[in-house]
Amino acid sequence: MPTYRLVLEYEGTAYVGWQRQAVGTSIQEVVEGALARVLGGEEVRIVGSGRTDSGVHALGQVASFRARTERSDAALRMGLNSLLPPDVACRDARRVEDGFHALRGARRKVYRYRIQDQGERSPLRARHVWHMRTPLDLEAMREGARHLVGYHDFTSFRAGGSLARTSVRTIFDIRIQREMDEVQIFVEGGGFLRHMVRILVGTLVDVGRARLAPIQVAEILAAKDRTRASRTAPAHGLCMVSVTYGDTETTEEEDE
Amino acid sequence: MPTYRLVLEYEGTAYVGWQRQAVGTSIQEVVEGALARVLGGEEVRIVGSGRTDSGVHALGQVASFRARTERSDAALRMGLNSLLPPDVACRDARRVEDGFHALRGARRKVYRYRIQDQGERSPLRARHVWHMRTPLDLEAMREGARHLVGYHDFTSFRAGGSLARTSVRTIFDIRIQREMDEVQIFVEGGGFLRHMVRILVGTLVDVGRARLAPIQVAEILAAKDRTRASRTAPAHGLCMVSVTYGDTETTEEEDE
Repeated sequence: MPTYRLVLEYEGTAYVGWQRQAVGTSIQEVVEGALARVLGGEEVRIVGSGRTDSGVHALGQVASFRARTERSDAALRMGLNSLLPPDVACRDARRVEDGFHALRGARRKVYRYRIQDQGERSPLRARHVWHMRTPLDLEAMREGARHLVGYHDFTSFRAGGSLARTSVRTIFDIRIQREMDEVQIFVEGGGFLRHMVRILVGTLVDVGRARLAPIQVAEILAAKDRTRASRTAPAHGLCMVSVTYGDTETTEEEDE
Repeated sequence: MPTYRLVLEYEGTAYVGWQRQAVGTSIQEVVEGALARVLGGEEVRIVGSGRTDSGVHALGQVASFRARTERSDAALRMGLNSLLPPDVACRDARRVEDGFHALRGARRKVYRYRIQDQGERSPLRARHVWHMRTPLDLEAMREGARHLVGYHDFTSFRAGGSLARTSVRTIFDIRIQREMDEVQIFVEGGGFLRHMVRILVGTLVDVGRARLAPIQVAEILAAKDRTRASRTAPAHGLCMVSVTYGDTETTEEEDE
């Protein structure tokens, strides 16, 4: 029974998030619905590399599934794109080795968070950028971010409702860069707790506004107390950029 | 009676274009509606630097109006942005010298056209980019574009329904550049005929696909016949980037 891997791009604005919910449309069900048609009626269940919340976007979400029906990579990709709505697309589809699992095999994930910190709100970027009126101090943010890189207990950056068994995760890198009126924060990690990237961004923004000193990020991390970190940044600024697979390292449980 | 100048950004997807129409919502009426509230009930008529068609976006559309009511620049800008919908915003508002007229005073306009010529359609850019499956030859397009720069009769690039008295316009510059899977065409001119930028883009795309030789652009221009040029490129790839004012040169009549 062949295993397939999909790379998906989507604009999350109109969806309840990746995962099926009791109410509202999820990315997962839209892709599964299109897949059933491409596979001639065979219903499959897809597994994502991680959940994305309502309003969160993806450039490179990865999903996997097994199917009895065989399809060429091109037929799968083009069939999906002719059936999916304009805000969801399949960037790549291919048959992969048996045993590939988009959730269990994920080793590194990159998220990007976009902030516009100058000027009036921008309609052309309204669905993708968190707009604020206080220019951010990037040097302070980078200094604060350094305390988060590494293997830590991220309890302070974990939302209620998180189901993960442990709060220990690895952040490999946090890059913060400016392009004109926009600040982009790239967070690369082994796996993320529920809302972890958005709480981390909210906290770094408070450092960038001088509401927190950079060293306080280390104190917040050490406190293992969600009430110490800042408010969760809004969903629409967040985008899952890419996922890397491999089998030499240990997987970190995914909860975002 | 003070004169004011607005710089507006908007996503045109949900609108019938800049100008009021019998059916559908225009950018003009949305801005006029918000202005009436900011001006305490005074109804004003705004003039745009040019019309944008349904689905066309703007980063820097300029509009002017006169009002009996005085408002500070900041009150005007912030009042408008609190009232305008998410897909329209005022980037700048200021009182200007009497006699300023956004349409009659415009000297140079820059439009940008975005094309994605590789890979699958991109949901995150779906409202802003013309997606095609044929990679474009930028060198050929630049060679073709050189024939359009200058003071010419653009009858071949003028849509039916155009009301302008003359088809003679000046194109100062056409810049074509690639960024990853995206080609951006910047057209700077004194004024444009109806659909002129989009017909010009459609024709240059045919050059980029080798359906036309670059020299044929000169032949199409010389023919003064709309049926010789290519199909009009779709509206959603187009964005009015900026307008320059001055009073030393002659204005070219605006018709787009």
